[in-house]
Amino acid sequence: MTATLMDGKRVASETLAAAEKRVAKIKEDTGVTPCLATILVGADPASITYTQMKRRRCEGIGMISRKVELPEDTTTQGLLDVVNELGSDPSVHGILLQHPSPPQVDERAAFEAIPVGKDVDGVTYGSFAHMWFGEGGFASCTPGGIVRLLDAYDVPIEGKHAVVIGRSAILGKPMAGLLLDRNATVTICHSRTQNLAEIVKQADIVVAAVGRAEFVKGDWIKPGAVVMDAGYSDNKGDVEFETAKEVASLITPVPGGVGPMTIATLIDQTVDAAAKQLGVA
Amino acid sequence: MTATLMDGKRVASETLAAAEKRVAKIKEDTGVTPCLATILVGADPASITYTQMKRRRCEGIGMISRKVELPEDTTTQGLLDVVNELGSDPSVHGILLQHPSPPQVDERAAFEAIPVGKDVDGVTYGSFAHMWFGEGGFASCTPGGIVRLLDAYDVPIEGKHAVVIGRSAILGKPMAGLLLDRNATVTICHSRTQNLAEIVKQADIVVAAVGRAEFVKGDWIKPGAVVMDAGYSDNKGDVEFETAKEVASLITPVPGGVGPMTIATLIDQTVDAAAKQLGVA
Repeated sequence: MTATLMDGKRVASETLAAAEKRVAKIKEDTGVTPCLATILVGADPASITYTQMKRRRCEGIGMISRKVELPEDTTTQGLLDVVNELGSDPSVHGILLQHPSPPQVDERAAFEAIPVGKDVDGVTYGSFAHMWFGEGGFASCTPGGIVRLLDAYDVPIEGKHAVVIGRSAILGKPMAGLLLDRNATVTICHSRTQNLAEIVKQADIVVAAVGRAEFVKGDWIKPGAVVMDAGYSDNKGDVEFETAKEVASLITPVPGGVGPMTIATLIDQTVDAAAKQLGVA
Repeated sequence: MTATLMDGKRVASETLAAAEKRVAKIKEDTGVTPCLATILVGADPASITYTQMKRRRCEGIGMISRKVELPEDTTTQGLLDVVNELGSDPSVHGILLQHPSPPQVDERAAFEAIPVGKDVDGVTYGSFAHMWFGEGGFASCTPGGIVRLLDAYDVPIEGKHAVVIGRSAILGKPMAGLLLDRNATVTICHSRTQNLAEIVKQADIVVAAVGRAEFVKGDWIKPGAVVMDAGYSDNKGDVEFETAKEVASLITPVPGGVGPMTIATLIDQTVDAAAKQLGVA
């Protein structure tokens, strides 16, 4: 048996196409164009590229992308002032603060200044808790994209055993909350986990989010399991793809699997935020 | 083999005795007496009893217990005003809003008005997220008490597989976060979990928090496991005690196990809050 590859590029395109229609409808119904504000502090080359990609996707589906660029030596208070202004600006529906901020900035304080209703990147403590308590906070975008991809392939989640490998703030921890909210039994593994292979072997759904190339071996995968690979290093994922695809039923390739879903989720959540703020949800 | 019983009454007494010494030291160093404010809305008999118990424990170790009683028909705004006043009152170090509030009150809004630094009952979203991100938010008191009890018996947590049965807001979910913060591998099970017995069978540490008498059977327990029973119905716990104690290495009796640790944790966290606010942490 060879696993079906989960085509994140296709599902992301479909998600964006649906978002584009919703944006057109919102404009028609309210006269307002949904807007995502992206804040970039400093001039880190990778961050410039990421924010550009996000802004282009916004504009590509008819949304407004408001670009806020702040100098490298911005203070915490300076950044807070900007976030607060965008937070209270009714023409801005979503706010993204590109990580990382320069070291002199208290990034957590800046994140927390984003109102939960505009936190379309799912970075605030409020969003995290809302999500864990099933109150619909915006998800951190990569875990949110993984759930969208599972849904696109009709993967049953309820009652299934999902094993999340990794416990980062933007991946493992919110992933566990999202899967629990969908009624999976969830195990969170990490660097201190003993018998990792044995635990992964039981998973109906494996989410690999460790950030180490080919860390998860193919013979750890239960036959028929669904494998979601959120890793990316040297064009490889966290899962030993060649061996894992022989036992899994569905697997995400790297690249082209989980990756494209992250921005699609950001955009989709921004449209959700706009619809809600404009009362057309 | 018969398990050692974990004596929550004794550990709670020791926790309170240590808290009493810390209170005396804080008074000596700062001239200020740590104070817990308890808010009771309405006259539910069980709630009256619970708040009385908490207040007596406070006073018993030399703290001030400020009693706030509000009428049954209190509005959300009325309650918010009280919480905000206590929140900004420097002589109040911890705030407890007794659950449940009457139906006309937006209890979540009232909880969220408690400043995270005074949320000694661990009910706010901020405390939940701080705790999940290892930033030292106050724990929900029963899970916090369970960790104190594990520590009192020198139970290793790091790297161990902990299985939490139940996912309530004040028990299962914060319990998972606390155990993960202590580097356990954590599995969260619930009513939709398939193969529950098999999963529990793998646990080095079992936390039963389902609220159904003797739901967890003795033959689900791995020989030598540590069993923490947070249930209480009809003088029984969530675990079939008589059979489980024959296989576990350590087990909490019901009553007298987890139960007494809850108030001890509330008091201990109030002393922590006072010490921090008074700069003598």
